[in-house]
Amino acid sequence: MEITSLNNELVKETVKLQQKKYRTQTAKFILEGYKAIKEAFDSGIVIEYIFVDKKHADDYKFCDKVIETNDIVLKKLSTTDSAPSAVAVGIQKTYDKNILKNSHKVILLENIKDVGNLGTIIRSAVAFSTDAIILYGESVDIYNPKCVRASVGNLWKIPIIHIKDFHKLQEKFKNFERIATLPKSKNMLKKFEPKIPCLVMFGSEADGLSEELIKFSTASVKIETENTVESLNLASSVSIILYELFMRK
Amino acid sequence: MEITSLNNELVKETVKLQQKKYRTQTAKFILEGYKAIKEAFDSGIVIEYIFVDKKHADDYKFCDKVIETNDIVLKKLSTTDSAPSAVAVGIQKTYDKNILKNSHKVILLENIKDVGNLGTIIRSAVAFSTDAIILYGESVDIYNPKCVRASVGNLWKIPIIHIKDFHKLQEKFKNFERIATLPKSKNMLKKFEPKIPCLVMFGSEADGLSEELIKFSTASVKIETENTVESLNLASSVSIILYELFMRK
Repeated sequence: MEITSLNNELVKETVKLQQKKYRTQTAKFILEGYKAIKEAFDSGIVIEYIFVDKKHADDYKFCDKVIETNDIVLKKLSTTDSAPSAVAVGIQKTYDKNILKNSHKVILLENIKDVGNLGTIIRSAVAFSTDAIILYGESVDIYNPKCVRASVGNLWKIPIIHIKDFHKLQEKFKNFERIATLPKSKNMLKKFEPKIPCLVMFGSEADGLSEELIKFSTASVKIETENTVESLNLASSVSIILYELFMRK
Repeated sequence: MEITSLNNELVKETVKLQQKKYRTQTAKFILEGYKAIKEAFDSGIVIEYIFVDKKHADDYKFCDKVIETNDIVLKKLSTTDSAPSAVAVGIQKTYDKNILKNSHKVILLENIKDVGNLGTIIRSAVAFSTDAIILYGESVDIYNPKCVRASVGNLWKIPIIHIKDFHKLQEKFKNFERIATLPKSKNMLKKFEPKIPCLVMFGSEADGLSEELIKFSTASVKIETENTVESLNLASSVSIILYELFMRK
C-alpha cells in the first residue's frame, strides 16, 4: 500500500494524534523513528500501521502493517523538526486493575506538568527497579510525543497508572509506608531506611506536595544539599532518591 | 524612559540576543521575568537595562536602568509563550584564568547539546558542592535563554569554563584524578572512592565519552542499574554521581 497525499484521510487522522484530545478519544498514539517503533513492537504494543519512507521499507519488515510514503507526508506526521524514516500509530496500553497487588516499590507524581521530566523519570524508575508509577491529580499525557521520546523505549516497561481520587489512593496504599519527599524534612536520604512496601511521593516543580498528601504520609525524607540551593530539578530529585533507596544491596 | 515601539533600535538589538551569534558578538544575554533578573542582579551580574511592563515598574526599583514598556514589546523580546513582566539585558560573566587553582571537585561535559540538560546539571552541581564545570569540545551556549531558565538562578553560582583544546585540558588537570563515567566500567558507584582533586567526565547523550578522554582518564565508574536499561538521562546520571561522590560525609 502506498499513500503520498497530504489530503489522504488516514494521514489527516494520524496528524490529529499529535493532540491530547484525539489521543484520549481514540486511545491511540504516535511513535516516531525506527528505534521507538521497533522497541514498542518488541514490547508487545499493538501497531495499527506504520507510514514508512519508501527508501527505508526494508527496515520495517518485522511488521506487516507498512504503508509506503514520502518525506513530505512524514514531515507532516512528525512532531520533530526533521522527518523520521517512519511514523507509526499504536494502541495505548491498559493495565489490569490488580497490577498494584504485587508492587512493593511504587512512586507517585502529583500534578506533573513537564513532559520531558516525566519521560526522564520513567527511564530512571525502570533503571532503579521501581514496580509502578502513579500519576496523581492533573498530569500530562504519557503518550505526548515528547514524553514518548524522553522515555527512550521505557514507557512499556513499567505500569503507569492514573489515579485522580484521593479515597481510591487511600484505599490502594493503606498498608504501604508512604514517604513524602520534602525539602524541609529532617530525615536525610543517606540515612533513611524505607519500609517495604513503600510509596514514594513527589510534588510538582511549581507547588511541591499538597497538604493532603503530606497528611497522608507516614514518613518524610530530603536530599542533602548545600545551603545555597533552593531546589533540584524534579527528574534529578526522583532519580537520586530512587537510586539511593532502591539500589542499596 | 519609555519605549513602546517595536521599531525602536534598542528593541531590535535586544531581540537579536535571542540568537547565539549575537550573544557571542556582544557578550550580552537576556534575562526573562522578575526572579531571574533579581537573582542575577543580586549575584553581581551587570544589568545594562530592563524593559519593564509599566504596571510592574515598582517591582524593579532595585535597578536604575529601567525602561518602561508594554505587553507587545515584552512579548517580542521574550522567548517564552507568555510575556514576562520584564526582560533585561545583562553582560556575560568572565572568569579569572586562575580560577581552577582552588578547585578540587570539577566536572567535565563533552559536546553537550541539550540546553535543558545543561541547565539542570548546573543546578545539581551547585547543590552538590562542585567547584567548577568544564564544557569541553562543542557545546551549547550557557546563555541560551532556555539554559538560563533551566538553571533557575544557579548560572552565577559556579564557574563555567569552555575548553576546546585537548592539550590545554591535559595541562590544567594533569594532577587530578580523572574519572570517566562509562556504562561498561566495572567500578560500581556506591563502592567508588574518588581521590581529591578530581575531574569527573561525562560524554554526550548521543555519543558517550570520546576515546581521547577515555584514554586521558585515570579511573572509571558506572551507576548500578537493572539490566534492562540502556542508559539514563544525562542530567539524571550527573545528578546521581555528584550526589553520591561529593555529599558523602
